[in-house]
Amino acid sequence: MQSIESSWADFARPIASAEDYIASLRGRRMNVFFMGERVGEPVDHPVIFPSINAMAETYRLASERPALGGVHTPIAGLQTNRFLHVPTGPADLVAKHEMQRELGRRTGTCFQRCVGLDAIGACHSVTFDIDAANGTDYHQRFLAFLTRAQTANIVIGGAMTDPKGDRSKAPHQQTDPDLFLRIVKRDANGIYISGAKMHQTGAVNSHWLIVMPTMRMTEADKDWSFVGALRVDAPGLTYVVGRQTNDTRAVDGGALDAGNAQFAGQEAMIVFDNVFVPFEHVFMDGEWQYASTLVERFTTYHRSSYVCKTGLGDVLIGAAAEAASHNGVESVSHIKDKLVEMTHLNETIYSSCMAAAYRSKPLASGAFLNDEMLSNVAKHNVTRFPFEIARLAQDIAGGLVVTMPSEKDLQNNEIGPLIRKFLQGKSGVETIYRMRVLRLIENMTIGRNAVGYLTESLHGAGSPQAQRIQIARGMAIEDKKARARKLAGVEERERSG
Amino acid sequence: MQSIESSWADFARPIASAEDYIASLRGRRMNVFFMGERVGEPVDHPVIFPSINAMAETYRLASERPALGGVHTPIAGLQTNRFLHVPTGPADLVAKHEMQRELGRRTGTCFQRCVGLDAIGACHSVTFDIDAANGTDYHQRFLAFLTRAQTANIVIGGAMTDPKGDRSKAPHQQTDPDLFLRIVKRDANGIYISGAKMHQTGAVNSHWLIVMPTMRMTEADKDWSFVGALRVDAPGLTYVVGRQTNDTRAVDGGALDAGNAQFAGQEAMIVFDNVFVPFEHVFMDGEWQYASTLVERFTTYHRSSYVCKTGLGDVLIGAAAEAASHNGVESVSHIKDKLVEMTHLNETIYSSCMAAAYRSKPLASGAFLNDEMLSNVAKHNVTRFPFEIARLAQDIAGGLVVTMPSEKDLQNNEIGPLIRKFLQGKSGVETIYRMRVLRLIENMTIGRNAVGYLTESLHGAGSPQAQRIQIARGMAIEDKKARARKLAGVEERERSG
Amino acid sequence: MQSIESSWADFARPIASAEDYIASLRGRRMNVFFMGERVGEPVDHPVIFPSINAMAETYRLASERPALGGVHTPIAGLQTNRFLHVPTGPADLVAKHEMQRELGRRTGTCFQRCVGLDAIGACHSVTFDIDAANGTDYHQRFLAFLTRAQTANIVIGGAMTDPKGDRSKAPHQQTDPDLFLRIVKRDANGIYISGAKMHQTGAVNSHWLIVMPTMRMTEADKDWSFVGALRVDAPGLTYVVGRQTNDTRAVDGGALDAGNAQFAGQEAMIVFDNVFVPFEHVFMDGEWQYASTLVERFTTYHRSSYVCKTGLGDVLIGAAAEAASHNGVESVSHIKDKLVEMTHLNETIYSSCMAAAYRSKPLASGAFLNDEMLSNVAKHNVTRFPFEIARLAQDIAGGLVVTMPSEKDLQNNEIGPLIRKFLQGKSGVETIYRMRVLRLIENMTIGRNAVGYLTESLHGAGSPQAQRIQIARGMAIEDKKARARKLAGVEERERSG
Amino acid sequence: MQSIESSWADFARPIASAEDYIASLRGRRMNVFFMGERVGEPVDHPVIFPSINAMAETYRLASERPALGGVHTPIAGLQTNRFLHVPTGPADLVAKHEMQRELGRRTGTCFQRCVGLDAIGACHSVTFDIDAANGTDYHQRFLAFLTRAQTANIVIGGAMTDPKGDRSKAPHQQTDPDLFLRIVKRDANGIYISGAKMHQTGAVNSHWLIVMPTMRMTEADKDWSFVGALRVDAPGLTYVVGRQTNDTRAVDGGALDAGNAQFAGQEAMIVFDNVFVPFEHVFMDGEWQYASTLVERFTTYHRSSYVCKTGLGDVLIGAAAEAASHNGVESVSHIKDKLVEMTHLNETIYSSCMAAAYRSKPLASGAFLNDEMLSNVAKHNVTRFPFEIARLAQDIAGGLVVTMPSEKDLQNNEIGPLIRKFLQGKSGVETIYRMRVLRLIENMTIGRNAVGYLTESLHGAGSPQAQRIQIARGMAIEDKKARARKLAGVEERERSG
Repeated sequence: MQSIESSWADFARPIASAEDYIASLRGRRMNVFFMGERVGEPVDHPVIFPSINAMAETYRLASERPALGGVHTPIAGLQTNRFLHVPTGPADLVAKHEMQRELGRRTGTCFQRCVGLDAIGACHSVTFDIDAANGTDYHQRFLAFLTRAQTANIVIGGAMTDPKGDRSKAPHQQTDPDLFLRIVKRDANGIYISGAKMHQTGAVNSHWLIVMPTMRMTEADKDWSFVGALRVDAPGLTYVVGRQTNDTRAVDGGALDAGNAQFAGQEAMIVFDNVFVPFEHVFMDGEWQYASTLVERFTTYHRSSYVCKTGLGDVLIGAAAEAASHNGVESVSHIKDKLVEMTHLNETIYSSCMAAAYRSKPLASGAFLNDEMLSNVAKHNVTRFPFEIARLAQDIAGGLVVTMPSEKDLQNNEIGPLIRKFLQGKSGVETIYRMRVLRLIENMTIGRNAVGYLTESLHGAGSPQAQRIQIARGMAIEDKKARARKLAGVEERERSG
Repeated sequence: MQSIESSWADFARPIASAEDYIASLRGRRMNVFFMGERVGEPVDHPVIFPSINAMAETYRLASERPALGGVHTPIAGLQTNRFLHVPTGPADLVAKHEMQRELGRRTGTCFQRCVGLDAIGACHSVTFDIDAANGTDYHQRFLAFLTRAQTANIVIGGAMTDPKGDRSKAPHQQTDPDLFLRIVKRDANGIYISGAKMHQTGAVNSHWLIVMPTMRMTEADKDWSFVGALRVDAPGLTYVVGRQTNDTRAVDGGALDAGNAQFAGQEAMIVFDNVFVPFEHVFMDGEWQYASTLVERFTTYHRSSYVCKTGLGDVLIGAAAEAASHNGVESVSHIKDKLVEMTHLNETIYSSCMAAAYRSKPLASGAFLNDEMLSNVAKHNVTRFPFEIARLAQDIAGGLVVTMPSEKDLQNNEIGPLIRKFLQGKSGVETIYRMRVLRLIENMTIGRNAVGYLTESLHGAGSPQAQRIQIARGMAIEDKKARARKLAGVEERERSG
Repeated sequence: MQSIESSWADFARPIASAEDYIASLRGRRMNVFFMGERVGEPVDHPVIFPSINAMAETYRLASERPALGGVHTPIAGLQTNRFLHVPTGPADLVAKHEMQRELGRRTGTCFQRCVGLDAIGACHSVTFDIDAANGTDYHQRFLAFLTRAQTANIVIGGAMTDPKGDRSKAPHQQTDPDLFLRIVKRDANGIYISGAKMHQTGAVNSHWLIVMPTMRMTEADKDWSFVGALRVDAPGLTYVVGRQTNDTRAVDGGALDAGNAQFAGQEAMIVFDNVFVPFEHVFMDGEWQYASTLVERFTTYHRSSYVCKTGLGDVLIGAAAEAASHNGVESVSHIKDKLVEMTHLNETIYSSCMAAAYRSKPLASGAFLNDEMLSNVAKHNVTRFPFEIARLAQDIAGGLVVTMPSEKDLQNNEIGPLIRKFLQGKSGVETIYRMRVLRLIENMTIGRNAVGYLTESLHGAGSPQAQRIQIARGMAIEDKKARARKLAGVEERERSG
Repeated sequence: MQSIESSWADFARPIASAEDYIASLRGRRMNVFFMGERVGEPVDHPVIFPSINAMAETYRLASERPALGGVHTPIAGLQTNRFLHVPTGPADLVAKHEMQRELGRRTGTCFQRCVGLDAIGACHSVTFDIDAANGTDYHQRFLAFLTRAQTANIVIGGAMTDPKGDRSKAPHQQTDPDLFLRIVKRDANGIYISGAKMHQTGAVNSHWLIVMPTMRMTEADKDWSFVGALRVDAPGLTYVVGRQTNDTRAVDGGALDAGNAQFAGQEAMIVFDNVFVPFEHVFMDGEWQYASTLVERFTTYHRSSYVCKTGLGDVLIGAAAEAASHNGVESVSHIKDKLVEMTHLNETIYSSCMAAAYRSKPLASGAFLNDEMLSNVAKHNVTRFPFEIARLAQDIAGGLVVTMPSEKDLQNNEIGPLIRKFLQGKSGVETIYRMRVLRLIENMTIGRNAVGYLTESLHGAGSPQAQRIQIARGMAIEDKKARARKLAGVEERERSG
């Protein structure tokens, strides 16, 4: 069992660059598996590295554009990465979303830091509220933790989704109590937790994790109602990195076949086996009444964070236009019209997310939270429009997106020249550029980064039905009915008469 | 020919209330026609009055909620109606849109003042820009005019859309030069204009009009390139109020059949026959290069103004929920789901408009203009979603919306009791309330206010294709292509090599 | 009380033409109300006549194209109108649907005979099935009735929809038992029925009505479980013709304002007060078990009958193209693209209906019934696509559709010439033609025939949710799951192991 | 150069079963490449075999259900596979489409024989028409060829799509004349052809190919205007099998990761280097006027052939329902509603295709051709609805579809048990079954068979715009306009007056 100080010892020197960040991931002793094999050093794993590199882009951005990728935080009193910042006004949330779109544009994938960022935001206010009600000191603990993190400029991951088992049962009703992460033991220094968290974004690429409950809890679920922070290499943790579409193209086909060879997302299953969390890093401990508040605030933040997909949309629209240009058809009216439609849908998402930021409101802790209705609306649009944008991109690009030979064919002496000859497009465009752009479109619509652009757009931060439930709660239907009655001439007096 | 002073003499006492406003419309000598007959006093015309009453609501709001419906204007240095205010920051545009939604909620129709408001906004900056380039004094003239208008607290209408004739020809190329409003004569005091403006919102209900060019002009179109303000009762003006769906229900069926008996919109054709405008009220005179700038700024303001339709959406969603309640099915899952979908679409429009306001930028004159891309995106959503919301409202309401007997049947001694008996819904709901709500739904989806909620949502502030052209211009496709090339691994160096 | 013979005496001479049909409606003693007034002679009522004329078109078609509008029926052994024919093979249903589309094209509205036709079809097989099970003689009674009807070549209306009151309760549970049409008395000769039927298509324009239960019944609902035929002028019947959007334009604005002055639909509420039906005309009497069968067969027929809307779609597409031509923009790419989209949606509906006819299957009586799944799918498309077609028609047509002056303005000496001057479109097109086409578009999208094209498309033959329930029943989900398991490698043996 | 007899010698014994078929593919000397390597024996290649097995299913179906998968052909006068049959009536096309849906259900992928089938259909009538016009004997040659093929019961592939190069130029205008397949030489016995055909479905799995022009030709394109049949192992042919999403899961992850381990599609690029085709196998030779006829007939057949996707839809709907069942949520209302929506869309496609078959019309040769408008409409729906069905399947299935560990993880002693524990769903369902179903959904929505279900649905048989052009040609807009004018009261006499 580590002391708090020792657990932070590795982070004495702040991470100052993308290179620092990548170096910081080396040499950790983690149990990471991928495709049935233990991964010795994730940084050196060709399938995993692109996800690390996408995360590293958050540091590159902070170096290149410190006002966008970084921020002066009043908590630690220094400049840190914006992904560690608690928003204290609409401008913070606006800047956050602009950063997210820009990172989407730079990487064309999920850069994996939003879960942690939104966990920080939610914990800030919820710990404050619990303390105000109960006289606990979670908020100070949390601020102390966050100050260290901001000072070290590390990556914090957020872990929320439990396996859930039988979805009709509460945690304490499950046949197997581990199907929700839970406290299995406690001693004078802290708690011990077991269970699992599913499809955790960027887990292996983080330094610390914040674990949180995944849904509303009841009093009988107290042992499942806690929040804590822990190092990703804490004893007892095992990671299984999930398979993604075309993941092995990183090794089997060359950069061309990968489509986007530099960047990818990552989602892992994390198994907890009696993992220790000292009280200093526990930010909720049995206050089951606050589980739903935490989840709602987290999802309200996180649903607007899906503004990142508009950055991916920018890339895909650009790729489609480039492919059309290679085919010599960029100015054909139906092609232009499709590019406009893609842009319209993409900007509609953007506007929903941005409006949710501008209309954010302060919580008791001083943190600002996106407008709940608009944040749900934004995410709900994200569950629809990227699919149509992707369909239109494939429409413009043509069938070659899914029938094209491999880069290895191009390198073959016998057939390489034939491919160069027959896959040429508009005069003056190298065949290989045409192929690269088509592979990028494949990557984003039916390849590795379609995982993030499409499926994750459906389910991340809650599936479509979760947003509909929140929209139903917030839609003020009684007020709307009263407005209608007034205009219809149904007098309130008459109604009760 | 009136002097400037005399032309303002009638407005010496500021309009202080809705009653004042309505009184101010009486006794004017205007040539107004409706359905082939001269309208002696529009205020007393049962078909026209609901449109006046909708306009009056802008004064009621200013009285009841002065911070929303009114504003302190720095130009005249006093509190005036917000519909006379030039926005000087994002907060002004945000407040404007909140006011527009609230007025939509209160009236369930088009309250007709946005065209004038957005004309004011556009003229403020364009006159400034012309003066800066040419040393003219249009901006001072405009400010003097606006100061008088704000002081008198009057209604200014905007008139833009010309008949256009053969759409493939410029004004000076038309067989009939009057198909665009033009200067036919000028003397030492001012200009004389002839032609027409089509489907002018709230024209008869205004005090003054600002006339503006409707599209890009060329040098040969100088005589069609002008902006001026004139009283709606200036000699030489004739108004033909357009027919609306179910307009005569205001007279033939009783309040119930009207659906929304209190409020309606208004659009009129205005014919100009040698109408004099003194130079003091001319704000552009031949500077054809600025016509397109004016149109673009106006439409950018005006497309976001369609946020008003979300207020109508609120009413229609409420009416559908009320109808479902009368049928005893409000909690049925597919009904709830449809209400959620309606809300989702409505709030998507809202978020686009609001984001366009929050992201407004200053022009040289100091006026702030909505973000152009987002404003176009917002309006483009308005050309789609109200139609789906209306379809869902009819789905929930049931076929009775279009097969229901008249209020006169209800009043008939023989059949009235039969209707009461057989049209009853859930126990405890008076049949007449059920009927009123269904008539309101008819009114907004296939009746008089569907004109504003649906068709005008398509064409007002420019038809769908107009937005697509602007989106195409603003979509920065070369930047998007560069982003795609970078991720695809198509190096810029390679491209030029 | 009339004898059977006397009840048919008026129909001794078969209706041989549209003129005959219209003449046959004169002089009947019916209690018909519209807008609070008793209608002396419906044929002479300017609001009602267009609906009679639409019905008359079914006779005109039979005269002009006897192979399409008529058919040799084996039941009466003679040529009769196709609307009286029981389909005995797929070709009959195909011809029926082709006739329905053609009548939609000719009238641009609901021609009102499909309910009766589909009632005939459903009664044919259900009476056969009841007899086969119970030894009753309903089928012979029905054939005798139908033989007379076919010989006289009359119009039979169908009446199904009850007021229903509290939708969560069965007929016998209603506070007011009349909220479903019921047998209130019986004697040696027949039954006496009271209650009402809501929004009955073409009721006033029919000669006879078939009344049917509206939903599944229970044993306690025996008195509500019956089928019978009766003359529309039977003692005890009262009709209240429903208001439609813009119905009074038939009287207040001239032919131009009506948009489609010749044709319209009709829906009426029918109140039954102790109306006698002799046993010879009773085709179900208490066999509550067959109520749901009857409803399902009727709706299966009737949902495919909505193919008529593709005929209306043809007219609306044509009107939009004509309007574009008047504006000189017919060959602009986005206009053409919208016409293609409208056609695509319209033909998708057509294909669903036709496939449901071609894949019809025989019932025990020998009658053929449309494929149930495809018929539901067809109607479900009808609840969506006409709304989009209408939106696109308005998009192409422009805002003038809802802001245009009245025909009376055109006739006014002062403003008529101004309207002619300023509403001119492309050179060579008379302004009045342009206006007529725009009024037709108004008529079909937000005017009188939008009632039939849009709202009735939602609710006729069952609201959208009714189709979804039937699709759910027919979707063979267990078979689909088995197919998926097989391909996924989930062996059936394993599943039970 | 082979004689005709010798070229058929290998097919002396008819293929009687799927095993026969697979055996028939062994031992051929073909130049096949995949991922840069020569494929020695495609049958033994783990990535290619699933595509062979999908093709083999057409033989299995013929064995198991000879009335569906086979047919008695009047041409050869014997029972043969239905994929070799020229349709001689609507019933043949209906049976063909039922077979295609059933094969879609059995394989969940593209079974690759439709291109060849539709090539046969198109050549039958076009050769007849050329002969009738020019006195040539192509039709007899073609019948002789087809008789041999039907007798041998072999697989014929169709090859149409040329590389096209600069899409704005005709074949003879291309810088490189090989960008369209062309005749480079001719001698007394036949022609020699060079060039390439792109993304050819099932090419490697066929026995013979029919090559056809890809678009309208001009007189200057005579050397590009020909049709011929040749063995797939003819000297001078090279095949490059295209990469598909997740293709290497066939080797790297075990059956589970593949999702559908048994079946897949195949598309290859075929390069022709001076390949000889004897005149007996040439069915068009320079008759450039018939190139567009051939293409139009082929695409009309082929667009309806996309009915196969409804079979895939059945599988995907079933998989989604199975996944919902594993999660214990199958009866939740929003889940059921989504399954209904998926079914509705799937059956809409089905109905369009079937209607196009039932409404087929005979050509001069006696072959029947699908209705052109409805076939285009059917395919156009295929370019849209599968994408929405796939989105809904992912919605129901949950995010695990794209984050799930590999089968190899399951087999790992350390983490296998953890995965079994934490990925369990509803009690009683083995975790591995749950995983298999989710992998099938991945396979069809973002994996290997999404290539066929989604992207190929867009581009196969022509991209969306190609259908829109055909719909525009067939939409009889002048007739529709005339209908509208008639109802609007615009008299034809008036128009010309």
